[in-house]
Amino acid sequence: MTDDAMAWAYLSRVVEPPSPLLAAFVATLGPVEAAARIRRGAVGPEVARITEARRDIDCAAEDVEILTRMGGRLVTPDDPEWPLLAFGSFHGERVRGRPEGHAPMVLWVVGADSLVDVAERGCSIVGTRAATAYGEHLAADLSAGLAERDVAVVSGGAYGIDGVAHRAAMAAEGLTVAVLAGGVDVPYPAGHATMLRRIAERGLLVSEYPPGMRPARHRFLTRNRLVAALSGATVVVEAGLRSGAANTAAWAEALGRPVCACPGPVTSGASAGCHALIRNGHTLVTRAEEVVELVGAAGELAPEPARPTSPLDGLSDAELRAYDALPARGARTVDEIAAASGLPATGLLGPLTTLELAGLVVKRDGRWGLASRKRAKT
Amino acid sequence: MTDDAMAWAYLSRVVEPPSPLLAAFVATLGPVEAAARIRRGAVGPEVARITEARRDIDCAAEDVEILTRMGGRLVTPDDPEWPLLAFGSFHGERVRGRPEGHAPMVLWVVGADSLVDVAERGCSIVGTRAATAYGEHLAADLSAGLAERDVAVVSGGAYGIDGVAHRAAMAAEGLTVAVLAGGVDVPYPAGHATMLRRIAERGLLVSEYPPGMRPARHRFLTRNRLVAALSGATVVVEAGLRSGAANTAAWAEALGRPVCACPGPVTSGASAGCHALIRNGHTLVTRAEEVVELVGAAGELAPEPARPTSPLDGLSDAELRAYDALPARGARTVDEIAAASGLPATGLLGPLTTLELAGLVVKRDGRWGLASRKRAKT
Repeated sequence: MTDDAMAWAYLSRVVEPPSPLLAAFVATLGPVEAAARIRRGAVGPEVARITEARRDIDCAAEDVEILTRMGGRLVTPDDPEWPLLAFGSFHGERVRGRPEGHAPMVLWVVGADSLVDVAERGCSIVGTRAATAYGEHLAADLSAGLAERDVAVVSGGAYGIDGVAHRAAMAAEGLTVAVLAGGVDVPYPAGHATMLRRIAERGLLVSEYPPGMRPARHRFLTRNRLVAALSGATVVVEAGLRSGAANTAAWAEALGRPVCACPGPVTSGASAGCHALIRNGHTLVTRAEEVVELVGAAGELAPEPARPTSPLDGLSDAELRAYDALPARGARTVDEIAAASGLPATGLLGPLTTLELAGLVVKRDGRWGLASRKRAKT
Repeated sequence: MTDDAMAWAYLSRVVEPPSPLLAAFVATLGPVEAAARIRRGAVGPEVARITEARRDIDCAAEDVEILTRMGGRLVTPDDPEWPLLAFGSFHGERVRGRPEGHAPMVLWVVGADSLVDVAERGCSIVGTRAATAYGEHLAADLSAGLAERDVAVVSGGAYGIDGVAHRAAMAAEGLTVAVLAGGVDVPYPAGHATMLRRIAERGLLVSEYPPGMRPARHRFLTRNRLVAALSGATVVVEAGLRSGAANTAAWAEALGRPVCACPGPVTSGASAGCHALIRNGHTLVTRAEEVVELVGAAGELAPEPARPTSPLDGLSDAELRAYDALPARGARTVDEIAAASGLPATGLLGPLTTLELAGLVVKRDGRWGLASRKRAKT
């Protein structure tokens, strides 16, 4: 265990993240010196104030040991695996300019994949815990579709949409990432303990909180910014008007990432938040292809959905009018067709011949009729 | 019966509308002279060509008689009731500049209300004939909501969404307008004969086609432009990827009128056309209030839908963190709360006092606990 790692672990707990003040302090002194000064209280009044409550709690060694036992690692801003998060950087450099100071201090990570890969091709699928069967179907469908297209599915591990998204990504043998609002050793919700263990084995568990930290209301909101930051785009599958997913969407927007939402019945309160997002200018999506288009990888455009076609497609106005002037049964003379269609008789030969060549009409005894009893449907 | 009316009636049938060429001819000569010249063939080669097929069919007197028997009237561009349609005007003046030449020659109208009123405060509700129960519910809801807000509901009289919209508007004692693709005396579809009769009595039947004219495929498309033109906004409630409603929406867009669409389950093909419209930048709407906002009458803004509230709304970050640091049962000292929340003990008194005043926490024997066993839900 390096001194650096122990210092980062200590710093990860001493102030509730994110703390721009602590970040600046660490950036100036480096993690080892910053941790040492905080421990002995050799800091200015501002840092003293934010570290006062926890500076004597030093369980860095135990924290790192718990993480190691889980096969995890502490990823710090010094690390090549540190993902390019869109927050103002820890080192004081501005990464993309905004919103500064919200970078995590460290990331506690369990799982084999690299955070850098996730951040390069990740998409969050989020939504209400109180998902409907429709929302669950949709989340599973989108998540599997993204996984099949090599997009890492990022979510919050919660009941409802989150859980369905994680599971569907794993079922499609894709990468999934659960960003937790507590320590990586604290399975939350408890009913998702097995799922979270599978994610640790086959995907990634990520948290900015040290082991043992319990999720809390404000930590869910804080966690949501990391879900958004690790994702090239955020999809809200189902969300009521008041929902954590809307908070994640707001973070994604603040980070300049595309936000999209799935429509649902207007009669379903569980879709009302999605409809509000779309009305506010965010993108409506219905299929994984449309989401992949937004996640990145330039040039990946969703193919147009296939439209039903009709044998009458591509007919000119005159051809369509001539066709429409034919009776359902029997046949008409050119003059009758002229009167019915309003087209001059002299101008009908061309359209009727085209229709005959297309197999749509037939000529019998100088009269024209439909090629089959059954008229083509529009 | 004036000569003018008889001439207009003749002109209404002699060429299949819309005909910019005939319109220009009539604008130059006036209806009586134009009709007389067409009858005797004293016209240039272009007008001769477009009038050749029907110039000998003169049933203007019968047409007007049928209309009169129905209690209807012929509304012509000379008439004060001629609605300000967005097409290039019949008289050659440009009304709103585009798309020129698509104005109807005349309108055959049955019903007591004025077309001008409709055009000033009309909204079309259109959609698939193969509506789902969901679509029908939604169409009824929107139509009733619009009718209650004094918006005339314009549609095409078809099965499915159209019919539901007309019926719901009448049920709400509102004005509804059916724009037909055939003569006003040709009930189409036949199964809607009773409904169309009720619309004639309590609303308006409108057609640019003379009595007896049968609906035909190209007439439905032509009719759709009048549905759009008579409406301040067009709402597509349910439509597949290939649908007449999409054609009405395209007309509305070309006329510079707002187009909106209702979302539905992404699993429903009957909503796929609506989702495509929204993805193309048209407005998602879920309620009549949101539609009224687009129809006109400046200043009518839909109220924000009520959001669920929580007693924790409006708490500061420190208050929320302090609240979250309290145990589900029992109580904690200020130092314990400081360690759990990461807030300095000296800074906790303010937040805890605020929470106590809000009735969210209580102080007992120097310790702080939640005010009730049951924590407030997020």
